[in-house]
Amino acid sequence: LNLTIDGMSCGHCLNTVRGALDRIPGVTVEKVTIGGATVTYDPSKTAPEQIAEAVNDEGYTAHPVPAK
Amino acid sequence: LNLTIDGMSCGHCLNTVRGALDRIPGVTVEKVTIGGATVTYDPSKTAPEQIAEAVNDEGYTAHPVPAK
Repeated sequence: LNLTIDGMSCGHCLNTVRGALDRIPGVTVEKVTIGGATVTYDPSKTAPEQIAEAVNDEGYTAHPVPAK
Repeated sequence: LNLTIDGMSCGHCLNTVRGALDRIPGVTVEKVTIGGATVTYDPSKTAPEQIAEAVNDEGYTAHPVPAK
């Protein structure tokens, strides 16, 4: 069986990561690029580890970057 | 919060699609490319619609191509 498959592109990754972050209560997505993301979050609702985990659950490997 | 995210590339899509197809009982993955896949399958265990659905579940849009 042959399949044609639409959506296999880096745009797919951007959408997937953005969606995963958007679904976390207290998170506002500022920016998603190939290789990284910037969000603001409500510390009373979530934490960096939980935010990274949501991205990992989609099959990527996310590392929170400590604020400078 | 800034995150660095590994795996946002077309290689991610290839791995994701291959994994989804590999998990279907009766399916043997022959080839996965950006934009398509070729599998052999045991018709007593699965069907083209089910195979396409497994890919769709990962966030892509798959269309079975009728054999020539």
